[in-house]
Amino acid sequence: MKTVSGGVCAAKGYKAGGVHCGIRRNPGKKDLALIVSECAANAAAVYTTNLVKGAPIIVDQKHLADGKAQAVICNSGNANTCNADGIEIAEGMAALVEKHTGIAANDVVVASTGVIGEPLSLAPIEKGMDSLVASLSSDGSLNACHAIMTTDTVPKEIAVEFTLGGKVCRMGGIAKGSGMIHPNMATMLVFITTDAAVSAQMLQKALSEDIKATFNMTSVDGDTSTNDTVVLMANGLAGNPQITREGEDFDTFMKALNTVNMHLCRSIAADGEGATKLLECVVKGAETLETARRVAKSVICSSLVKAAMFGEDANWGRVLCAIGYSGADVDVSKVDLSFKSKAGVIELCRNGAGIPFSEEKAAEILHEKEIDILVDLKSGSFEATAWGCDLTYDYVKINGDYRT
Amino acid sequence: MKTVSGGVCAAKGYKAGGVHCGIRRNPGKKDLALIVSECAANAAAVYTTNLVKGAPIIVDQKHLADGKAQAVICNSGNANTCNADGIEIAEGMAALVEKHTGIAANDVVVASTGVIGEPLSLAPIEKGMDSLVASLSSDGSLNACHAIMTTDTVPKEIAVEFTLGGKVCRMGGIAKGSGMIHPNMATMLVFITTDAAVSAQMLQKALSEDIKATFNMTSVDGDTSTNDTVVLMANGLAGNPQITREGEDFDTFMKALNTVNMHLCRSIAADGEGATKLLECVVKGAETLETARRVAKSVICSSLVKAAMFGEDANWGRVLCAIGYSGADVDVSKVDLSFKSKAGVIELCRNGAGIPFSEEKAAEILHEKEIDILVDLKSGSFEATAWGCDLTYDYVKINGDYRT
Repeated sequence: MKTVSGGVCAAKGYKAGGVHCGIRRNPGKKDLALIVSECAANAAAVYTTNLVKGAPIIVDQKHLADGKAQAVICNSGNANTCNADGIEIAEGMAALVEKHTGIAANDVVVASTGVIGEPLSLAPIEKGMDSLVASLSSDGSLNACHAIMTTDTVPKEIAVEFTLGGKVCRMGGIAKGSGMIHPNMATMLVFITTDAAVSAQMLQKALSEDIKATFNMTSVDGDTSTNDTVVLMANGLAGNPQITREGEDFDTFMKALNTVNMHLCRSIAADGEGATKLLECVVKGAETLETARRVAKSVICSSLVKAAMFGEDANWGRVLCAIGYSGADVDVSKVDLSFKSKAGVIELCRNGAGIPFSEEKAAEILHEKEIDILVDLKSGSFEATAWGCDLTYDYVKINGDYRT
Repeated sequence: MKTVSGGVCAAKGYKAGGVHCGIRRNPGKKDLALIVSECAANAAAVYTTNLVKGAPIIVDQKHLADGKAQAVICNSGNANTCNADGIEIAEGMAALVEKHTGIAANDVVVASTGVIGEPLSLAPIEKGMDSLVASLSSDGSLNACHAIMTTDTVPKEIAVEFTLGGKVCRMGGIAKGSGMIHPNMATMLVFITTDAAVSAQMLQKALSEDIKATFNMTSVDGDTSTNDTVVLMANGLAGNPQITREGEDFDTFMKALNTVNMHLCRSIAADGEGATKLLECVVKGAETLETARRVAKSVICSSLVKAAMFGEDANWGRVLCAIGYSGADVDVSKVDLSFKSKAGVIELCRNGAGIPFSEEKAAEILHEKEIDILVDLKSGSFEATAWGCDLTYDYVKINGDYRT
């Protein structure tokens, strides 16, 4: 498996574009994205488990009921959530895509991100459709990625190449993250395209399985958004024998999907609102997979661990504390704990009790931009990884005044 | 029921004191507290549910197994947690109390708060015992309260007077809170004394019941401490007929306990690390008590709601979002939402959708120091209240560099 360029346009038959249509006031910030496949694709999606769901999600659940999609339209600057006319507006966005591209509205996935509870007008979207369609190109992935960003500071995209049944296949994805990131069965907005031929059923199986180890293990601030959506489209243009059951090809496809998703998770965590550091908590030696995941996520979500990492303070007791309240059944008297980065690795706690360590060495390790928190529960053979970021002044600043 | 002065010394037969013994470097900050009753008292306690438990908690569970206690010793500056010799040190603290006061070590409650994972030496405590015992007085509650503070900016104490069986009784408490505050079956450190006569069994029943509506509904940062402890001592010196079962007297006692605990919760939330505002989320119209509590606590714990309150930004969509991911079974299309403070009240959302409101009026309301977030689920008759605080630059600052 190798990494290639092109994001969501890396696979055969996909074009993407992005423009500023006027939902956002700043004309320099794109706010409307479109991704299209030249033919209908099998499609799978996962959404937020928040009971408050963005109107686009209600519409997508209907449009994707037949396991088919051909386009994604997405705006930033407004979440189209908690609005009385939200569903009508989301359907209107799909209808505009049909009018301007000929793709049936029922094959259009709609997504929105931004402020909750402010009415979204169709007017700027309607006005922007001509230039949006004109912007579609096979190297338009980055434009689309910029258009879906909110407080993200860097675009997040990746593509990989792999082989199925002797045919070269590609898969690429774009994502937006930043704040309100604590996905539960999905994450903010992620669009993935592939030219591999995979049945809609196996596509959903692959996606639903992989997010448990990727997006659901990522947290910026513990707040599960109302609009989390991951969409995976497979148009089959690579010409491989369609994957319709488990087996070697499905495993290869899962590996490609995991590579794409893991990259996007790490990018989302590293670019969390206000973040200066990517935190990765690797838990091993767990009695069950559920325990490993619970412990890793509890550590990554702790405000106190996050603030300590921002301060580059080796306050490992907070990590042990977060393991203790995770709700997982852990023998805390067995826990070993280390911090690791490019600058080295340092052990801080063995069998649940502190051991002497060099503060100087610890400070050197924590000064890096990517910190691994290594936990060994020494009670079994399961492991899991979770991704997060530090808690900083800027997180507070960004979120103390988000709407204005 | 009326409020009286005197804190934990308000009730008959209690003395308290506090000194600087040298666990903390700053000689101006007291770090060792002692509370004693002139006779053995019935006692009840609740502790953290964190699997990582401070050594003092292990010792207290043993000492309180007989439902009796006569003294509390507590240090700040070191949590005595995750230390190989922790239990020995905690037992050593109880033994020092026996040596200097004659109170049996088995009747001494021990508590510690501060950094996790740094060995606690008995030496400064031993050295400070003479002055600690000399500091005991019937107006020493505030001294003891100062000695248990860590990053708290104000001492937290209260006392109330009530009548049982024609006898005037009093109950008083002190607390420390500030950070790592998200108690689960208890809170950081709270010591409550009363001269009412209550059997140990009914005392535990009263305490275990009340904390569900008070300390367990309080959160500063979502991190459940390893050392949370609430101790309630009742020495019976008021002379009322001992409470041994439910009934009118027990109800009166519960009311006094709730008044004390609610006051301490509000004080802890308002003085949360870095906090500038006390947030109170009042949920009504819930189908069950569990739903009301879950929803209230989810709102109060949301980093995004907390940051918006710091920024005085009426971003009510975040409140609805937190209701949606609370895990409670809520019909979000029925939810009404208002913000309220001394400056007035403003409705922002009706039946799950936003309604037009005056940004000016909202800003005026959110500019106050105490903000009520009022949620009506319109699905039943249960209600609950949770207490928290805003998320500020200072929270990050305090916790980015706690150990140094």
